[in-house]
Amino acid sequence: MLIACPSQRSEKLAERVESFIRDVVVPYERDPRNGPHGPSAQLVAELRQLASRDGLMTPHILPNGEHLSQAETAAVLERSGLSPLGPVAVNTMAPDEGNMFLLGKVATPEQKELYLQKLVSGAARSAFFMTEPAEEDGAGSDPSMLKTRARLDGGQWVIDGTKTFITGADGASVGIIMALTDDSVAAKATMFLVDLPHPAVVIERVLDTIDSSMPGGHSRVAIRGLRLPPSAVLGEVHAGFHYAQVRLAPARLSHCMRWLGSATRAHEIAVGYATKRRAFGKPLIDHEGVGFMLADNLIDLKQSALMIEWCAGVLDSGSRANVESSMTKVAVSEALYRVADRCVQVMGGSGVSKDSIVEQVFREIRAFRIYDGPTEVHKWSLAKKMKKVASEGDYRVGK
Amino acid sequence: MLIACPSQRSEKLAERVESFIRDVVVPYERDPRNGPHGPSAQLVAELRQLASRDGLMTPHILPNGEHLSQAETAAVLERSGLSPLGPVAVNTMAPDEGNMFLLGKVATPEQKELYLQKLVSGAARSAFFMTEPAEEDGAGSDPSMLKTRARLDGGQWVIDGTKTFITGADGASVGIIMALTDDSVAAKATMFLVDLPHPAVVIERVLDTIDSSMPGGHSRVAIRGLRLPPSAVLGEVHAGFHYAQVRLAPARLSHCMRWLGSATRAHEIAVGYATKRRAFGKPLIDHEGVGFMLADNLIDLKQSALMIEWCAGVLDSGSRANVESSMTKVAVSEALYRVADRCVQVMGGSGVSKDSIVEQVFREIRAFRIYDGPTEVHKWSLAKKMKKVASEGDYRVGK
Amino acid sequence: MLIACPSQRSEKLAERVESFIRDVVVPYERDPRNGPHGPSAQLVAELRQLASRDGLMTPHILPNGEHLSQAETAAVLERSGLSPLGPVAVNTMAPDEGNMFLLGKVATPEQKELYLQKLVSGAARSAFFMTEPAEEDGAGSDPSMLKTRARLDGGQWVIDGTKTFITGADGASVGIIMALTDDSVAAKATMFLVDLPHPAVVIERVLDTIDSSMPGGHSRVAIRGLRLPPSAVLGEVHAGFHYAQVRLAPARLSHCMRWLGSATRAHEIAVGYATKRRAFGKPLIDHEGVGFMLADNLIDLKQSALMIEWCAGVLDSGSRANVESSMTKVAVSEALYRVADRCVQVMGGSGVSKDSIVEQVFREIRAFRIYDGPTEVHKWSLAKKMKKVASEGDYRVGK
Amino acid sequence: MLIACPSQRSEKLAERVESFIRDVVVPYERDPRNGPHGPSAQLVAELRQLASRDGLMTPHILPNGEHLSQAETAAVLERSGLSPLGPVAVNTMAPDEGNMFLLGKVATPEQKELYLQKLVSGAARSAFFMTEPAEEDGAGSDPSMLKTRARLDGGQWVIDGTKTFITGADGASVGIIMALTDDSVAAKATMFLVDLPHPAVVIERVLDTIDSSMPGGHSRVAIRGLRLPPSAVLGEVHAGFHYAQVRLAPARLSHCMRWLGSATRAHEIAVGYATKRRAFGKPLIDHEGVGFMLADNLIDLKQSALMIEWCAGVLDSGSRANVESSMTKVAVSEALYRVADRCVQVMGGSGVSKDSIVEQVFREIRAFRIYDGPTEVHKWSLAKKMKKVASEGDYRVGK
Repeated sequence: MLIACPSQRSEKLAERVESFIRDVVVPYERDPRNGPHGPSAQLVAELRQLASRDGLMTPHILPNGEHLSQAETAAVLERSGLSPLGPVAVNTMAPDEGNMFLLGKVATPEQKELYLQKLVSGAARSAFFMTEPAEEDGAGSDPSMLKTRARLDGGQWVIDGTKTFITGADGASVGIIMALTDDSVAAKATMFLVDLPHPAVVIERVLDTIDSSMPGGHSRVAIRGLRLPPSAVLGEVHAGFHYAQVRLAPARLSHCMRWLGSATRAHEIAVGYATKRRAFGKPLIDHEGVGFMLADNLIDLKQSALMIEWCAGVLDSGSRANVESSMTKVAVSEALYRVADRCVQVMGGSGVSKDSIVEQVFREIRAFRIYDGPTEVHKWSLAKKMKKVASEGDYRVGK
Repeated sequence: MLIACPSQRSEKLAERVESFIRDVVVPYERDPRNGPHGPSAQLVAELRQLASRDGLMTPHILPNGEHLSQAETAAVLERSGLSPLGPVAVNTMAPDEGNMFLLGKVATPEQKELYLQKLVSGAARSAFFMTEPAEEDGAGSDPSMLKTRARLDGGQWVIDGTKTFITGADGASVGIIMALTDDSVAAKATMFLVDLPHPAVVIERVLDTIDSSMPGGHSRVAIRGLRLPPSAVLGEVHAGFHYAQVRLAPARLSHCMRWLGSATRAHEIAVGYATKRRAFGKPLIDHEGVGFMLADNLIDLKQSALMIEWCAGVLDSGSRANVESSMTKVAVSEALYRVADRCVQVMGGSGVSKDSIVEQVFREIRAFRIYDGPTEVHKWSLAKKMKKVASEGDYRVGK
Repeated sequence: MLIACPSQRSEKLAERVESFIRDVVVPYERDPRNGPHGPSAQLVAELRQLASRDGLMTPHILPNGEHLSQAETAAVLERSGLSPLGPVAVNTMAPDEGNMFLLGKVATPEQKELYLQKLVSGAARSAFFMTEPAEEDGAGSDPSMLKTRARLDGGQWVIDGTKTFITGADGASVGIIMALTDDSVAAKATMFLVDLPHPAVVIERVLDTIDSSMPGGHSRVAIRGLRLPPSAVLGEVHAGFHYAQVRLAPARLSHCMRWLGSATRAHEIAVGYATKRRAFGKPLIDHEGVGFMLADNLIDLKQSALMIEWCAGVLDSGSRANVESSMTKVAVSEALYRVADRCVQVMGGSGVSKDSIVEQVFREIRAFRIYDGPTEVHKWSLAKKMKKVASEGDYRVGK
Repeated sequence: MLIACPSQRSEKLAERVESFIRDVVVPYERDPRNGPHGPSAQLVAELRQLASRDGLMTPHILPNGEHLSQAETAAVLERSGLSPLGPVAVNTMAPDEGNMFLLGKVATPEQKELYLQKLVSGAARSAFFMTEPAEEDGAGSDPSMLKTRARLDGGQWVIDGTKTFITGADGASVGIIMALTDDSVAAKATMFLVDLPHPAVVIERVLDTIDSSMPGGHSRVAIRGLRLPPSAVLGEVHAGFHYAQVRLAPARLSHCMRWLGSATRAHEIAVGYATKRRAFGKPLIDHEGVGFMLADNLIDLKQSALMIEWCAGVLDSGSRANVESSMTKVAVSEALYRVADRCVQVMGGSGVSKDSIVEQVFREIRAFRIYDGPTEVHKWSLAKKMKKVASEGDYRVGK
């Protein structure tokens, strides 16, 4: 695998996760319980039972509650991504991975006991209610457009709004809802914890999307008069945007880790195909048109691994890593997409059929170029950052 | 629309087809009878009834049997592609369009009466049995690897082989089967007509593929001891490769025509989205990151139209247009793919959901880069051609 | 050649120009009088003598003063571009070609006699003083930033300003100067004709640039207290921006025509190299890595020709063709740059040496992506145009 | 700067080199003694005097003869590349850097005293005679085509052959010549040391090339009956291909290090330009069309640094790093070329003029995509390697 293990414990974990995915999870890829909205609840339960049996549930959080460093996490999550079902099986998937991370940092002991524990054990799934519908000018990539509001009413919070693209909402037991709690000059938001399902949190529909690996799919959700006690506030009131920042870069990076695993597997399949299949008198890989694509894959995969390791190191050094995680998200999502596209092309008809997972990996990574902030939004913020630094009269890079 | 109408009759037809697609067909795009293997037989029948009602069934073949010129066809087929359901509705879709073209050129009067008539009327669908499974080293992009064989036995042809990616086989009434009939030094093949379904032509399974607009999907088919009389031979014995050439360039080009329509529609949807949806204080289209993508679309769409018009003109001049149709297929499939990809990206979350057809157009055109010869195979033959011309001591282009 | 001749007269002219360039001009490419600021005045004179001898001076303007249609011009100018020295030799080069076009449309009979005649005969060169220095916030791609001013003083115009990137200023006999003559709300400008050299028009320096085909190079010019009589006004006072528009699209397009010729020639050289030179056991062209690049060239060259023909047709129909010429300029300059870059790469060490013209063509076309409006400025205006059309509730393309 | 310093000594050296380049060397960039074949001998001497004064001559080789590790070297050489004149000034340039490395590994003590010493002190320059003319089917990227031969004659070696693209031959005091010494089944070659200039080593001409930073340029050289004693053999007879391998990867990598510095400087200049220059009402950098290009630069530069650090680490671990240095050479040369191209584009007219070094950096890095093995040759060998690994039944990447 491409991401280096920075410690013995991560090396052991990574090896065990890799074996588990390759030997136990991969055979489930053609299980008919995989559907357009991800694996069924039953299939998820079955996979998780196997992971628990092998002591691999939520491998990046140690039994004592300690979280692996980001560099260690990278090695483990990459391996978990070798199958589209891997992250679901070992509970390293989005949005739960990010939600567990956030709860670990911000939740009260009571909230941890109520919510975090069952997420870490793999017994429950969670959802993160942030994105809002474009067609209603809600908050997509631009959080300043947040429209969902929470107001105090008789000591209780009452929340109203519409959310969309809420991954895993269907079937989740825990929700974290982002809502505006102050709309004075500088808007402030708060995060709330809610047990799901809840009558005031209505899944209007599960969207049909190009990707299909996330259990529960992505839903459009109406929140109508949801009443929550003060204890439902996650962390501090008005600190929502701050917490979103805390969650942001690591969650963004963990996407990169998992998809690197998936793209690596697609590449392995394509290399296998290209060495066995012949055309015009020789194996496909001996055609430069094919061999060069695979060489490009090798480079893109390696560069993705290096960017992830670098960004993980910056996070581990205590930085918020906003710039670094934007750079990494753009570089990795675009590179892995090129990899997946080349795998499809190398495999020809087989590449566009669902007989291998290459076709699914291609679709998933297409979505990844948009999820967690489209490439363009990240470039926009990188340009703003460069301008800011330069406006101080300094154009040097990487001081 | 982007393709010019070279005659009054094509202009009128094109306009009527465009109105029919936009007004009548588009509303069916969200019909639940659209599935992963294309629209259901019932939905196809319903759409065709409407097309027949409006006198638009098989619009590129006139009531007197005359075929529009390729330049005229281009204008009409582009309009039919404005919806993924359009070509099915008005019977300009693959593989029927190419099959009707071939039968028109090669079939005996009896064969025309038996087979062509019901295809032109839209009463039946057909399939073209050419491609063979890669995993068995059959003929994919390299026809010299053809493995299906027909041998004479007591005055009858007996055919055995395995075919795959047979578009529309499931539900077809007419089949054209390509089989080796002579494997001496220079292999020769023959085409056979067969009524479907037939007990010796077994659909092993309908493949699940990334695309989903073709009724009947793409099937893997076993042909086991299929016995056919001499009258089943299409045209001449041993002339199969020649007929494949006759069908090749026009069929390849008609793909380009239809997908140009689809990509144009996706672009229209993306422009509509980008002018209405706001982010970071202004409409998306006012962000250069978005506006430039749409400008690139405009150029790619126009260039695709020009390539199609050019290649159609070469065909109409009587040339086989092998080089020109290879150039056009590569240029158009790659350009339209970039267009579709940008449309997805411009629309963000909405682009990867199935709420608009943009997501489907993206998937369809991804497959188009492989169907009818992957980009790489065409470049390979273009390079061979250039070498041949150059080896005569002449490196001039476009003499 | 790639651009079709739409008439017999253009066909004959095109053929004669092609022969002249290939047979007579090409041998001068290695003449030591070619320098970093283009061919020397002496070399220019020598080449033009030959062109005049063969009756090919200014071939797109007929002896009776009639201008070929744009479609005819395209065929002729493409052939003239087969050598970087070609346009200079037969007087189809920028900026003279555009200046002659403008004078033909706008100049008074006296001005035509004084200026146009000697330009058409090839006896003199001209310059167009429009662009202003970026470092002084002058008019680069944004004409609204024009800073050069002309004011009336005692019945005479007095002009002050600084211009830069003035192609051919060094050695020109005729200048057209663009200056602001009214800076009320909607700024207005006027064009002036001036005999050169003139003591008030000082060439501060000839810039060293990446390109090297234009005689006289590109200069930075100070205009200090230049006094001109009313008769020096080209056309109407205050109509400068309008005339700039008249000149704009055809001049932009003629760049495309000439560079298409150059890139075609580079491609011919690269194909010749790739068929003769061997590596790793076979001719370079048999390596797909090389053959595919040449196939891509073929497609890019053809598409460029088609875009030029299309835009020429739009101009010939009487349209201003602003949108079409922006699309064409972007598409052609970027495509030809890819062609030139691939030619360099195919030829390896020979590609980066000046032993063939491929290296020069590469440098010239690199500049072409910026001259006459960088790609980005054209995309920006295309996006604005799309928004305008869409804001009228219509998102259709190519109606 | 982008490459991390892995030790205190490298950090100090890197900082001193950076200051020296920025403060002392950069002002010499506009010195008229910079010509098409690099800085003149006089300018080189002047710069080296300054470097010696500041104790920065050949900074990657310590006074005791110890060579910095590759990881340390990377940090130092990157800084030296901040100016195209930097590597010449501090003696980290090609081919001397690679030649010194090779001599340090392979030369006898006598050879080190005779040749290495004066190279390390900066008193002399050297050349590496490997590449042969394509037009004579000599060894370009394919060393198996080596045509220069050395035969024993009366106890002396007599060498004949033609070499081309010999960087720095003009003005070099030391030459290393690669010649075939055995052409039995597996050809064997030997390296020879020769004092230059030598009457039997004739510089036929200095090539005019797109790049212009190397002192002495690149020459075509005829070797006619060059007689050398046995002591002229570098290392062992017949070990030439082996030594070429020893030199190969580190020399390839040091190119990447230096050009990363150059591209970084070009990016700094472009950012400075984009924040100061305005168009269409705002600073260029506020146009997404520009800001996104600069964001892409940031990512490409970082990825290049990470690849270099990675490959340096592999070399430092004792590996030959053939695969890793091929991957790095391709990734870095292509990425830095994109960076340089974007810098040119961002700066518009200023980008194609020689008023800043951006234009030169662009030209230099264009050549870098070919020098030291064109991109395509590296991809070819990567594909071969993948096939070899896969043929052992293992398709896993990065095991």
